[in-house]
Amino acid sequence: MSRPLPVRTLAAELASAEPGSTVTLMGHVHRRRELAAVTFLVLRDRSGLAQVVLRPEEVPSAGLPPEETTVQVTGLATTNGRAPGGVEVTSPSITLLTEPARTPPAELWRPSLNVGLPTLLDNAPVTWRHPAQRARWELAAASLRGFRHTLDTSGFTEVHSPKIVESATESGANVFELDYFGRPAYLAQSPQFYKQQLVGIFERVYEVGPVFRAEPHDTVRHLAEYVSLDVELGFVRDHRDVLATLRDVLAGMIVGIREHAATAVDRLEVALPHIPEEIPVIHFAEALRRVGAPADEPDLAPEHERALGTWAKQALGTDVLAVEGYPLRKRPFYTHGWTGEPIEGGPWTNSFDLIFRGMELVTGGQRLHRYGDYVAAIEARGGSPAAYASYLQAFAHGMPPHGGFAIGLERWVARLVDAGNIREVTLFPRDLHRLAP
Amino acid sequence: MSRPLPVRTLAAELASAEPGSTVTLMGHVHRRRELAAVTFLVLRDRSGLAQVVLRPEEVPSAGLPPEETTVQVTGLATTNGRAPGGVEVTSPSITLLTEPARTPPAELWRPSLNVGLPTLLDNAPVTWRHPAQRARWELAAASLRGFRHTLDTSGFTEVHSPKIVESATESGANVFELDYFGRPAYLAQSPQFYKQQLVGIFERVYEVGPVFRAEPHDTVRHLAEYVSLDVELGFVRDHRDVLATLRDVLAGMIVGIREHAATAVDRLEVALPHIPEEIPVIHFAEALRRVGAPADEPDLAPEHERALGTWAKQALGTDVLAVEGYPLRKRPFYTHGWTGEPIEGGPWTNSFDLIFRGMELVTGGQRLHRYGDYVAAIEARGGSPAAYASYLQAFAHGMPPHGGFAIGLERWVARLVDAGNIREVTLFPRDLHRLAP
Repeated sequence: MSRPLPVRTLAAELASAEPGSTVTLMGHVHRRRELAAVTFLVLRDRSGLAQVVLRPEEVPSAGLPPEETTVQVTGLATTNGRAPGGVEVTSPSITLLTEPARTPPAELWRPSLNVGLPTLLDNAPVTWRHPAQRARWELAAASLRGFRHTLDTSGFTEVHSPKIVESATESGANVFELDYFGRPAYLAQSPQFYKQQLVGIFERVYEVGPVFRAEPHDTVRHLAEYVSLDVELGFVRDHRDVLATLRDVLAGMIVGIREHAATAVDRLEVALPHIPEEIPVIHFAEALRRVGAPADEPDLAPEHERALGTWAKQALGTDVLAVEGYPLRKRPFYTHGWTGEPIEGGPWTNSFDLIFRGMELVTGGQRLHRYGDYVAAIEARGGSPAAYASYLQAFAHGMPPHGGFAIGLERWVARLVDAGNIREVTLFPRDLHRLAP
Repeated sequence: MSRPLPVRTLAAELASAEPGSTVTLMGHVHRRRELAAVTFLVLRDRSGLAQVVLRPEEVPSAGLPPEETTVQVTGLATTNGRAPGGVEVTSPSITLLTEPARTPPAELWRPSLNVGLPTLLDNAPVTWRHPAQRARWELAAASLRGFRHTLDTSGFTEVHSPKIVESATESGANVFELDYFGRPAYLAQSPQFYKQQLVGIFERVYEVGPVFRAEPHDTVRHLAEYVSLDVELGFVRDHRDVLATLRDVLAGMIVGIREHAATAVDRLEVALPHIPEEIPVIHFAEALRRVGAPADEPDLAPEHERALGTWAKQALGTDVLAVEGYPLRKRPFYTHGWTGEPIEGGPWTNSFDLIFRGMELVTGGQRLHRYGDYVAAIEARGGSPAAYASYLQAFAHGMPPHGGFAIGLERWVARLVDAGNIREVTLFPRDLHRLAP
C-alpha cells in the first residue's frame, strides 16, 4: 500500500523550488480567475497560497474545479516576480481529489470575510477556512505553546482533572447536570478543587481544558463551554507571587505568538501588548474611587473595567492592570483573606483580577491552605464541611500556602484581535441557543 | 506585600549548595527518624527528597511535626557522603506552614505504596503524593510533551473542540446525556467529527482532551472519562501514511519521557519500548489465522491481542504491532474501505489498531472524504444523512483525503508500567461506581 507518490511541495516552499523543476502541490482551490489570455488558479494549503497559471489550451474542457475543491497540481516551478513568493506553477496537470465542491456559504477568496455572525457560526466548518478567520485560531494555538513552554520550564507539571464531578458545590449556580449511570452528576465549572489537591502532589501544576458554565444570559463575552488555562502553585507568600507567575505566563504567550504565529499577527494587524516586568496593581477600593463608583460596590462592572483599562493605558502606558483585594463576599469561600496593610472597608481578600485592555481576562489569588480555615469558611457561608469531604482531605493531610489563576483562552484572543463578540474567535461556540455545529 | 523572603533551595539543588551556606527548604515532612544520638527529618518537595539532621537539643519540645505537614526549614548546607546528593541540612530551624497534618491513609515514606486499590483511589489526593505513584503521572506528563513537540514541529495545529454535542450519533450507545438549558445534549465520545472538519481548515490538527464513555461494564481497562490524544491529517494516500505519523508520535513520546521523566523511569524500572522506523503490520485476516480464531470473527478479543503481542515480541522483536484492514461491519461508518490488494473475506477497511505489548492502544485509519460516500455509508447503515447535516457540510465543500488516530493516555501509561488496572495510573478515575474524589 501507500504507493510512492511525487514528493509534495507546500505553497510556502514554492519560493525555494528550483526554477524549471517539477513540483506537486495539494490543497483547496482558493480562487479561479479567467483573464483574456491566461487563467489563474490560486491553491490554498496549510502553509499559504500558491499561484498556478494555465494557458487557454491547458484549461480542462469542463473548466476549472470550483472553489474549495481539493486538488493535486503537478507542474513546473516558474519564476515570476508578480507571483506570491516570486514563483508560480506553469504547465499544470490538475487532479481532483474529491468531487467538485458546492458553492461555499461565503466568498473565502476575498480579503475579508464579510458575513454576519449567524452565517459565520452556522457555517463554521467552512468559514474558518478563510485565511483571516483561521489566523485568529492560529493566535490561540501559538498562545497555548507559549503558555506551556513557560510553565514546562518553570517546574510545573501538566495535569488533567475530571470534568464529570460529584457535586455542584463550587458555586452552585450555572452548572450543567447529567445522568451518570442513573444518578446525578455535574460538569466541572473549573478544575479549581482538583488543581489545588494536585498542588499537594506536584507543587506546581497547570491544565488546559474545557470548563462548563450554564450561563443563562446571552452576552458578547460569555460561553457555555470554553477553554481554561489553569495554573496553581505552592509555597507562595501571597497573591503577589501568583501575579508574578501570571506575568511570566502572559509574556510567554506573547513570545509564543511572535515565534509561531507571526503571519497571523501581520494579517490581522494585531498590536501585541507589551507585558511589563511587573504588572501594575491597584487595590479594589482604589479602583472603585478611580472610576467614581460607590465605595460599597461588591464588584467591578464591565464599564468600570473599561474605564480602568483606559486609565491604565493613559496614565501608566500599559495594556494590563491587576486589581487586588476584591471583597470577601464576592469571592469563593476558598479565597485567602487580605494580609496586606489594613485598608478601610472590606473585609478584603488576597485575590486579583487582571484587566486586559479594559476587560477582565484572568481571575486569581491566594487560596486558604489550613484545614481549620476551610471548615470555618464553609460554615460561615452556611455550608457543611461534610459536603466537601473529598476536597478537604488534601488540607487535613498538609498543604502548602498556594494560589493560582485561570485565563480564558477565547477571551484572550478576542481582546487581542478586538473582536466585538467572543463567538467570532471560538471554533464551535456553545451558548444558550447554540449547540451546533 | 510579598515581603522579601530567603531564596528557596529545592531538594535537588542542595547537592550544589556551597558547604556551610545557609539554605531554606520548603516542602512536606516525608519522614521522621529518631535515632539514639540524632534525629532525621526527610523533606519532600517537587524536586525530590532532602535530609535534615537535628541534634537532640535542636528537636522542638513538642517533637517534630508529623508526616505530610508542610514546613520551611532554614539551616546549613553540610557535606555528608551518606546523605542524598551528598549534602544535608544541619542546625535547622523549622517553621510550620500549616497546622500538623493528620496521619496519612498510607505510609508515604515507604519505598512502595502497599495499599489495596480502594484505599489508593479513595485517598487519591494523598496517595498520589507517594514518589512512586507520582512517578506514574510524570510519565504521562512527559509523554504529552513529547506528543505535542512531535506534532508542533510537523505542521500540526493544536485545536480544542466542544465536549457538549448535539447528538449521540457517532456510535449511539454509551453516551452521557445532559440537560442543556432544558433540552437534551450529550458528552462527546471523541472529537472525531470535529477533528475531521478541522482538517478542512488547518490540514493537520491534534487535540488533547477528555472523552466520555458511559461504559456499563466494570473492566480493568475502561474508564468513563479519559484523556484522548487525537491526531488527524489531510492529503494522505491511505491509512499507511497515518500509521507513519503514529510511529513518529510514539517515538516522540518516548523521547519526551527520556528527556523529562528520567527519574520516574528509573524509579519505576520502566523498560521503554523501542519504536522501529516502520511499525510492522499484519492484516486482520492474517491476525485471526495466527491466533487460531475463526475467519468470520468480526473483531480481536483481548486474548487475541495478548497472543499477537507475544508473537510480535518473539517473532519480530517488537513491542508494537499494527493490525490493518478491520472488517467494515465493526468500524464506524466514516471508515474508508480497503484499497489494497484484494484479500478473501471482508469487506475490509483502511483502518488499523495498534497493539502495544498485547493490548489495543490506538485506533486509527483513513476516513471517507467524498460527500457522496458519506451519504451512501450512512444510508447503508440505516441512518439519515440529514441527522449529520452540520458534520457533512465540511465534505460538501471539499475535503482532502485524510485520516487519523487516537491514543488513550491512561492506557499508554498502564502498559508502560504494566499496571494491572488502568485506575492505578489515573489521577481521579471515573467509572460505573466512582465519581469521587
